[in-house]
Amino acid sequence: MRLVTYRASVEDAAQLGVIEDQMVVDVARLGASCGVELPNSMLDFIDLSSPGIEVLKELLEAKRSRWPTGTARALDDVKLLAPIPRPRKNIFGIGLNYVEHVEESSRTLDTSKDLPKQPVIFSKPPTAVIGPGDAIEHNKNITQQLDWEVELAVIIGRTAKRVPVDRALNYVFGYSVMNDISARDNRRAGQWIYSKGQDTFAPFGPCIVTADEIPDPHDLDLWLRVNGVEKQRSNTRHLLFNIPTLIADISAAMTLEPGDIIASGTPAGVGAGRVPQEWMWPGDVVEACVDKIGLLRNPIVAV
Amino acid sequence: MRLVTYRASVEDAAQLGVIEDQMVVDVARLGASCGVELPNSMLDFIDLSSPGIEVLKELLEAKRSRWPTGTARALDDVKLLAPIPRPRKNIFGIGLNYVEHVEESSRTLDTSKDLPKQPVIFSKPPTAVIGPGDAIEHNKNITQQLDWEVELAVIIGRTAKRVPVDRALNYVFGYSVMNDISARDNRRAGQWIYSKGQDTFAPFGPCIVTADEIPDPHDLDLWLRVNGVEKQRSNTRHLLFNIPTLIADISAAMTLEPGDIIASGTPAGVGAGRVPQEWMWPGDVVEACVDKIGLLRNPIVAV
Repeated sequence: MRLVTYRASVEDAAQLGVIEDQMVVDVARLGASCGVELPNSMLDFIDLSSPGIEVLKELLEAKRSRWPTGTARALDDVKLLAPIPRPRKNIFGIGLNYVEHVEESSRTLDTSKDLPKQPVIFSKPPTAVIGPGDAIEHNKNITQQLDWEVELAVIIGRTAKRVPVDRALNYVFGYSVMNDISARDNRRAGQWIYSKGQDTFAPFGPCIVTADEIPDPHDLDLWLRVNGVEKQRSNTRHLLFNIPTLIADISAAMTLEPGDIIASGTPAGVGAGRVPQEWMWPGDVVEACVDKIGLLRNPIVAV
Repeated sequence: MRLVTYRASVEDAAQLGVIEDQMVVDVARLGASCGVELPNSMLDFIDLSSPGIEVLKELLEAKRSRWPTGTARALDDVKLLAPIPRPRKNIFGIGLNYVEHVEESSRTLDTSKDLPKQPVIFSKPPTAVIGPGDAIEHNKNITQQLDWEVELAVIIGRTAKRVPVDRALNYVFGYSVMNDISARDNRRAGQWIYSKGQDTFAPFGPCIVTADEIPDPHDLDLWLRVNGVEKQRSNTRHLLFNIPTLIADISAAMTLEPGDIIASGTPAGVGAGRVPQEWMWPGDVVEACVDKIGLLRNPIVAV
């Protein structure tokens, strides 16, 4: 299933929806029309875990293409938000997790040319999250080096504490896309939260695809374009630390919880690594895409 | 006021209280007994901002020492939790923010001996938070270098975005104590979240003292003892970046929100900086104290 958080109109509250044939079907209303109580927020739905997914699938199957009045709208008529507009904690970001990106970073940033022996983990606060179409803020008083990074985002579905690698994928609720925006000139003594955690620096979406539809998360093309020009293209098979390894590693020390987000790292082709270096400026449009999930498009706007 | 989050008994839910004469007065019940609706969680109370504090102060003044039945309990009879048991995002931690600690860190850790030119910011997830008396977990499979750091914690009271230094203290709700626990052997490529963000690595409390009672947060003694032996002693006047500077700096890029926590850094005397180095082990007890706020005592327990 392709789950979204959406607003039917500017005045409406955020709702949980599922995409079917270019329609957004409202999860809570579909449930109500069938006498089943289902939540209207993504986090509440994730908290239901697999049983929630099973119930929703049955309802979708039963009603497919004969949506009860008021439950479905054309996808083009709604505003999509970030699938989780307000995460319950900072996003876990993974640095230097594609081999070629380690190389390009060592040439132009302050990182080592050696491959990391363990995952490099940083965080982005919930205040950084924006949705599809939302503006990435360019504050010229803070940065002249605004950079892009397309990433596969992993959404945790169940509490995970000291999870072994071979069972780690059982803890995944689904997958999405994140553009890990950085102000490269805001790095501080190696700590990345300031350069990567700024308001609007976590474009996220357009949807969460449940894990059952992506049995192998390590065979997904991902790419990024700025103003229509391709800057990054790779495949998640090139991840240095794969998804189960990341979940096992983080959960060995920090309990992962339902709704937690792991942005799994970016491949080569970031602006800092190009010759000459390239940055994003107001008026630019950046598109980040992961195969089977979707495209996340955001304009850069001066503030 | 000295605000606490507490449980009257193991079965009871967490409640908001205020300490008066060695009694914990329940905020919501005190309000109800006077026909005033007041919240029963710290975050909800912080969201009320100054008006909440004013109303509560008036009720306390009116009822002082004549607490309505069921509103007050002896402090010794309740279990104190972390003042904010579940923050809404990761805690902002500040590294290398006392001069002597910069020096000791450069000798034994991988940091620079130069004073940082800008605050060094990292984060600790909400899952790291524990309260007074709770166990700090020592997992020998993960660390043999468990270290302490007493810090003044700043609790944000109002949404702060691009706040100038000279108005920054207006955004403080109050102050508390945090022990910024680290697994020094878990540092990764300079990113500190893994070494400092582990479960139970953010002992926090025992209370939040509202900002009106601490007009100058830069004149507070702070110290730390392990098994009764003093390891750290300094005063917040020695902070390299003071509280208004930290709030202005963070809020220039990342919006601060009510209930956000900034752990402002630790003075010299950490285990990593001692000759020979010292670490905490199961059976040890660590006490962190900031003058005018209180003492936070936690045992180390093997897991």
